[in-house]
Amino acid sequence: MKYNLDLCVLEISGDINLGSILRLMENFKLRNLYLVNPRCNFSKSVSDFACHGKERINSIIKKESLREIVSSNYHYVIGTTANTGKNRNAISSANLNEISQVFSDEQDVLLIMGRESSGMNNEELSMCDYTINIPVNTDYPVLNLSHAVSVILYEIEKLKGLKTPHMKNSQKATGVEVDALLKNMKTFLDDINYFEKSARHKHLSVLEEMIRRKALSSDEIRFIQGFLHVNDLYKKGLNH
Amino acid sequence: MKYNLDLCVLEISGDINLGSILRLMENFKLRNLYLVNPRCNFSKSVSDFACHGKERINSIIKKESLREIVSSNYHYVIGTTANTGKNRNAISSANLNEISQVFSDEQDVLLIMGRESSGMNNEELSMCDYTINIPVNTDYPVLNLSHAVSVILYEIEKLKGLKTPHMKNSQKATGVEVDALLKNMKTFLDDINYFEKSARHKHLSVLEEMIRRKALSSDEIRFIQGFLHVNDLYKKGLNH
Repeated sequence: MKYNLDLCVLEISGDINLGSILRLMENFKLRNLYLVNPRCNFSKSVSDFACHGKERINSIIKKESLREIVSSNYHYVIGTTANTGKNRNAISSANLNEISQVFSDEQDVLLIMGRESSGMNNEELSMCDYTINIPVNTDYPVLNLSHAVSVILYEIEKLKGLKTPHMKNSQKATGVEVDALLKNMKTFLDDINYFEKSARHKHLSVLEEMIRRKALSSDEIRFIQGFLHVNDLYKKGLNH
Repeated sequence: MKYNLDLCVLEISGDINLGSILRLMENFKLRNLYLVNPRCNFSKSVSDFACHGKERINSIIKKESLREIVSSNYHYVIGTTANTGKNRNAISSANLNEISQVFSDEQDVLLIMGRESSGMNNEELSMCDYTINIPVNTDYPVLNLSHAVSVILYEIEKLKGLKTPHMKNSQKATGVEVDALLKNMKTFLDDINYFEKSARHKHLSVLEEMIRRKALSSDEIRFIQGFLHVNDLYKKGLNH
């Protein structure tokens, strides 16, 4: 399998975690590392712990917003959570084979790790196609950040050994296409005054989660965009 | 399963590795930690990285010889190696289910991790019933010590057969709900004269495949039905 896997870490606070993650990225041959609003010091510990991954320090990409990264051309965006209650659609890292299409040929994939302290919030989780949870069935199930990364990258690595059946409809839409669809759906729903004002935010995030998680293909998005276009016709009074 | 798992680390040299291992032992509820000839400084970093496992610092057992530990009452002694060439009987951490009897009821098990620099030597490996290897198929397969520990403990934890969250399809919509949605979508699309006559049949089957394959939940179907209902309002001239 020759997927391209980028990693994004939110507000990382520990230099040693950062170094350890760079080493793991070298171990498992990941592509880019994005840091959203990093809080760490970028001290010498980073390169000490990065070992053979220390060259990667120079190519870290810092961003101020996760949204900006998610909205680029990824086929799949994968979140992580230690708290399965937060997201009913969390998939166990032990069952990644159930979403093996994510890590198949030519897919661009973004894996997001949350803050050391508080993980990913609900808004961030709603941007993801899937959310991975590491099953630890004890009273202290919260792994340190870099150790959670090691387990997830290890499980992804294991999938390489699997002959995966491809989704027949393998032209999965990218984040750009999904964003354009969501934008049009919001416009449509606002035009028809669909939302109770108080529920608008919540309903929009249900909609976003549903659209992202269903892994629509480019064809399917074009299809839906086609009938949203009817709204424009209504607006212009051109309904034929 | 209620096996008793002890961990033994040979000549550990890093305080942060030691702290991280104590945290992992607390995460996965291991019993005792043996250190054979530790080379680390036991600085404050150990407790910083041990987090909720820091109480375990006081019960670390230091020994001068691995042989002495192996010779006590363990049912199984399990070694680890990054180098499968060293031991032809190495079992992949991905296939621990093949030795699930090791982690069954009432077994006392010792897991040995080698040095950060050079792992376990042949004499030490020969003391083991089994040797575990973590499969990483890249040109830099050597994980940091504590990250190797996390992967192996995670795989052992998985053997417990705990209930891991599968792709949540429990609230999946029934065929009745999907059919009702499709019927309403067709009505809507016909009402707005969406289809070119010649393409209607083909487009309807794209729509149906998309809706069925995306495994919508009942909630999601209700959500979509909600905005299709707006079509009825249009028809009745009641658009608010």
